[in-house]
Amino acid sequence: MSLPPLALFPATASAIGGRLALGGVDAERLVEEHGTPLYVYDESTLAERARAYVEGFRAATGGRCRVVFASKACPVPGVMRVLRSQGVGVDVASAGEVAAALAAGFTGAEMVVHGNAKSPADVAAALAADAALVVVDGADDVELVAFHARALGRVQDVLVRVNPDVAVDTHEKIRTGHASSKFGVAPDAAADLIARLPAGVRLRGVHVHLGSQVLDAVPLVQMADWLADFVAEAAPATDVVDVGGGVGVRYTDGDEAPDIRRFVVDVARGAADAFRRHGLPVPELVLEPGRSLVAQAGVTLYTVRAVKTTADGTTYVAVDGGMADNPRVSLYGGRYHPVLATRMDAAPSGRYSVAGRHCEEGDQLAHDVPLPEPAVGDVIAVPMTGAYHQAMATTYNLFARPAAVLVRDGAARVITRRETVADLLAREA
Amino acid sequence: MSLPPLALFPATASAIGGRLALGGVDAERLVEEHGTPLYVYDESTLAERARAYVEGFRAATGGRCRVVFASKACPVPGVMRVLRSQGVGVDVASAGEVAAALAAGFTGAEMVVHGNAKSPADVAAALAADAALVVVDGADDVELVAFHARALGRVQDVLVRVNPDVAVDTHEKIRTGHASSKFGVAPDAAADLIARLPAGVRLRGVHVHLGSQVLDAVPLVQMADWLADFVAEAAPATDVVDVGGGVGVRYTDGDEAPDIRRFVVDVARGAADAFRRHGLPVPELVLEPGRSLVAQAGVTLYTVRAVKTTADGTTYVAVDGGMADNPRVSLYGGRYHPVLATRMDAAPSGRYSVAGRHCEEGDQLAHDVPLPEPAVGDVIAVPMTGAYHQAMATTYNLFARPAAVLVRDGAARVITRRETVADLLAREA
Repeated sequence: MSLPPLALFPATASAIGGRLALGGVDAERLVEEHGTPLYVYDESTLAERARAYVEGFRAATGGRCRVVFASKACPVPGVMRVLRSQGVGVDVASAGEVAAALAAGFTGAEMVVHGNAKSPADVAAALAADAALVVVDGADDVELVAFHARALGRVQDVLVRVNPDVAVDTHEKIRTGHASSKFGVAPDAAADLIARLPAGVRLRGVHVHLGSQVLDAVPLVQMADWLADFVAEAAPATDVVDVGGGVGVRYTDGDEAPDIRRFVVDVARGAADAFRRHGLPVPELVLEPGRSLVAQAGVTLYTVRAVKTTADGTTYVAVDGGMADNPRVSLYGGRYHPVLATRMDAAPSGRYSVAGRHCEEGDQLAHDVPLPEPAVGDVIAVPMTGAYHQAMATTYNLFARPAAVLVRDGAARVITRRETVADLLAREA
Repeated sequence: MSLPPLALFPATASAIGGRLALGGVDAERLVEEHGTPLYVYDESTLAERARAYVEGFRAATGGRCRVVFASKACPVPGVMRVLRSQGVGVDVASAGEVAAALAAGFTGAEMVVHGNAKSPADVAAALAADAALVVVDGADDVELVAFHARALGRVQDVLVRVNPDVAVDTHEKIRTGHASSKFGVAPDAAADLIARLPAGVRLRGVHVHLGSQVLDAVPLVQMADWLADFVAEAAPATDVVDVGGGVGVRYTDGDEAPDIRRFVVDVARGAADAFRRHGLPVPELVLEPGRSLVAQAGVTLYTVRAVKTTADGTTYVAVDGGMADNPRVSLYGGRYHPVLATRMDAAPSGRYSVAGRHCEEGDQLAHDVPLPEPAVGDVIAVPMTGAYHQAMATTYNLFARPAAVLVRDGAARVITRRETVADLLAREA
């Protein structure tokens, strides 16, 4: 079973005459004007997915909610500005992410602060920005936050990150809601922490995060039930419950992904029911989507640099990018569906491996990909690259990091300029 | 079986009174002056390992050799300058690596150029630097190199990368000498390429690379025999043979690593014997060590930000670094031995997991590590971080990349300045 060729691309993608266009801009024209590798983000897809979250969740909670973008997935001000325009807030975990959020126009009132090992500089940046909520991760962390708040003569609203013993089925490296997690504290320790919060912080509620690539609301609703129990016993003053993020996306035609509008309604109703059943007021709900807001808005464009066949019959299409701009293949075994952007309607001439340019055998983008006679100079487009690509890019082999453009209504605007060789050496003595 | 605590550290490391010192500089003093995370490189270790390669290989080849540093392992001019001072050349694979090599003082005469998907900009940079040898990776690649050489009115010396069907036992992702490799060309295709080289390039010989973490010279010697056979038949004009790199290092006490001086003698003798047996003149030999020149020279210093115990009894020591400065744990399952830098003589109080600060469960530096009552503010030192750490660092979660210092004779010099929040946003619109 195969998805239609555009199903993994942004909402505005088209392939008229076999030529890929994104946001109404021909992909090959983007390459001519901006070079490769190039990150392309589709503004409509970003806005549409943000609206699905915000409208759906507001309707289902009567407005007592926040949707905050987990900025680690794509801490690019030009992307975050689009999300903000639709009412999404921001989740940050470093002084750098605070700065990127401010650059995107977010105010502290829209900010939720995370981190399991916050530094004084990170906390100072968050408090200087007047962040609405700081999620404290344990006893050492709350002391640091309280110390900085007292130094500023204020009281900081905090959520305590609790680690319920509920597991969901997702990739081991990005599964977080389990008893041995590095994040948060066990229920008993959380109750203890809440009972002895230092001066300088005020408890507003609790935070949990189950993991990534969650496929439906069921685990979150089960967790809300557990949370209501915990709140009734250990944190009756709770008026905010942050249920984290982790909504899954489809990287390949074998994957499933939930419908956002249905997902947020299920979470909102399930959580409200759970709190009511425990005789508790329904708290303000916070959702923290990352990947599901941005992944499908992003496409990476490459130029083919070499095509050759090995002794065992594998034909490699080597492109001018790889593990430095797409770390997800090496890190998580991520699977992708590259296409040839100017001949999408041509019959495949065979199945190819798409390799990166880095000096490492593991630097591969995809295997067993049908392509129509790829040749040097052709443009390869890889969909589903909006999350954890630009965010985790490296300069491995001292290849400069790509530019990024935002496309909309037939026009492209540079939101991240291409790195230069001078940039690469700017910090070197 | 455990190694003595300093066996994985640089040659100058000491632990008098339980305090780690590197190059005669107290680790805690380094942290006070330069902050954390901090990459520390020991100049003596770099120089000593470079000398072992260069002196050993020169003696064993009568001087008909090159040792070139695979700069992708640590493309830091301040580090490469030390290697160059001992007679090591440089292997580069991008316009960025060419620029870093020039910044370190290398000339084109010392340069060997690699890459399976070179761009016009990469080739132009290499030729502008008058690179001595360009290793061509296939038919498309040699056309590109020849085109640029002709445009400059010159003839470029090249090696052809051949892919012999010889496998060595190493990590799958970094194993390269096999029939399905993305690098090089199969023997028949290489012979064909050599027979039809375009104007603008001149064949000097062949290149092979078996893989990484090679433990002794045996596979390289077997390959030299195969190569002599290939040369006799397909490339009799060969006067340079580049046998790649890949010499292993010890990351943990379970690992083995070859003695460099013995390794280079074994390779030189084995290769010379192989060519003589085939009635061929003994070629100039090129070796391309990367990791084995720099890994043990590097130590990363961190500050402990939190200590806490989970419901299942794991105690996490969370430090202010992680997968962004040490990508090898997530990428390759790399194993490390962190120590507490100011109490190295203290009895362990238990076994700990050392976690990073990034918002991802997989961001862990080491598990089951004996440490003496680690507490917030303590300095953690991780040895064996000189290769593929700074080289592959990311800005994930928008944490600024670390500074790097070179230590020697009781003094530390900044060779890479710490990234700033302004740097992180410099390319953003």
